[in-house]
Amino acid sequence: MNSDSIKALVFDVFGTVVDWRGSIIREGESTWRARGVDVDWPAFADAWRGLYQPAMARVRSGNRGFVKLDDLHRENLEQVLTDFGVSGLSDTDKDELNRIWHRLDPWPDTVAGLNRLKSKFIIATLSNGNISLIVNMAKRAKLPWDCVLGSEVSRQYKPHPEAYLNSVAALGLQPQQCLMVAAHNNDLLAAGEQGLNRAFVLRIGEHGEHQGTDTKAEHAFEFVAESFTDLADQLGCA
Amino acid sequence: MNSDSIKALVFDVFGTVVDWRGSIIREGESTWRARGVDVDWPAFADAWRGLYQPAMARVRSGNRGFVKLDDLHRENLEQVLTDFGVSGLSDTDKDELNRIWHRLDPWPDTVAGLNRLKSKFIIATLSNGNISLIVNMAKRAKLPWDCVLGSEVSRQYKPHPEAYLNSVAALGLQPQQCLMVAAHNNDLLAAGEQGLNRAFVLRIGEHGEHQGTDTKAEHAFEFVAESFTDLADQLGCA
Repeated sequence: MNSDSIKALVFDVFGTVVDWRGSIIREGESTWRARGVDVDWPAFADAWRGLYQPAMARVRSGNRGFVKLDDLHRENLEQVLTDFGVSGLSDTDKDELNRIWHRLDPWPDTVAGLNRLKSKFIIATLSNGNISLIVNMAKRAKLPWDCVLGSEVSRQYKPHPEAYLNSVAALGLQPQQCLMVAAHNNDLLAAGEQGLNRAFVLRIGEHGEHQGTDTKAEHAFEFVAESFTDLADQLGCA
Repeated sequence: MNSDSIKALVFDVFGTVVDWRGSIIREGESTWRARGVDVDWPAFADAWRGLYQPAMARVRSGNRGFVKLDDLHRENLEQVLTDFGVSGLSDTDKDELNRIWHRLDPWPDTVAGLNRLKSKFIIATLSNGNISLIVNMAKRAKLPWDCVLGSEVSRQYKPHPEAYLNSVAALGLQPQQCLMVAAHNNDLLAAGEQGLNRAFVLRIGEHGEHQGTDTKAEHAFEFVAESFTDLADQLGCA
């Protein structure tokens, strides 16, 4: 498609902008093993993330009022620590470990790509992460967002339609003026149902060596890119 | 005070970051006079801004649900055009004129000061402006916000306590970890009542040559500065 009508790029963050799994494994093995969390860190990261969708589902369904992701992560951490037989961490330690989600590393092309994309478009997050999580992550990793949007502004988790529509409305734009950027087919399908354009970015490795999902664009998305810098090329960014 | 406990600076925008009155007068005289708004532009700007507080007061009091500032500005524009005897503008023209609030110019020290302050602190807006207004203004004027907060996130207008407390909470901080930066004594007093630290920045000229209010810090605020670069000096920013 022609990108002339696009005013803003809105980004999924976990997996698309940052390598959540690799970052958790690295900090776990370098820091938390010595502090008492002596576990199989790849398995621990996967188990923690595995509780993410069920926790959000209770909010999306209306069975629970809106709870920010930091708090869902903290509840899920208790569960995972129990399941992995870890005990003895203080509440302060658990709070610090929980904030590992604020300290995720970007993919190698992320910062250079975002800076190029920002030269031509508004770049905003459209993440299930809460505002402070996204802001602290951006400050540490030098992610140059024009605006932090997503679940805490929309008061609803993706893929609920309101997560997309409220974010687009906050930018004062129509859905067709926005391009949703994600490494996940389902996120893009849901964005497309609300009228947003879609860019699939391949992130092989998000789920480790034996990734079984999102290894390719499974639908006819408007853009398919191998990296943010490839997307910047396709969108004509300097 | 010692600034070591400060994590984030939260900024009033209209008058503190940008010269709303001078910007409106400049664009009015250079563009809108020829398009049919042949008025005394300083008086027109003051009258338009004069309807700002009464419009927000109806929301703050609960007599009206939350309405974003773009929409309040648009309603007030109709009133001011009528009062100044201007007719014949199309709705499209009025919408474009209303978005003059997205095109305000920063004070001369603003961009350099913000970039220095950003090197040490989170810098966020805490404005009554809606998200798209602040984002479009920032994109045009190169204001490097880490995060856009304020009324549309808080669903309440300053100086209502929730406008301050919800913004601080969104950053995951305590009020005493935040420094409210404003050119207005009343805004700082209200922020202080919620526990935020306060920096008064002198903006002589916000209200024109014969400014009658906010010509000095009227209370013992934690910081008093002549500009954003002066504030950066006082806060030890490189």
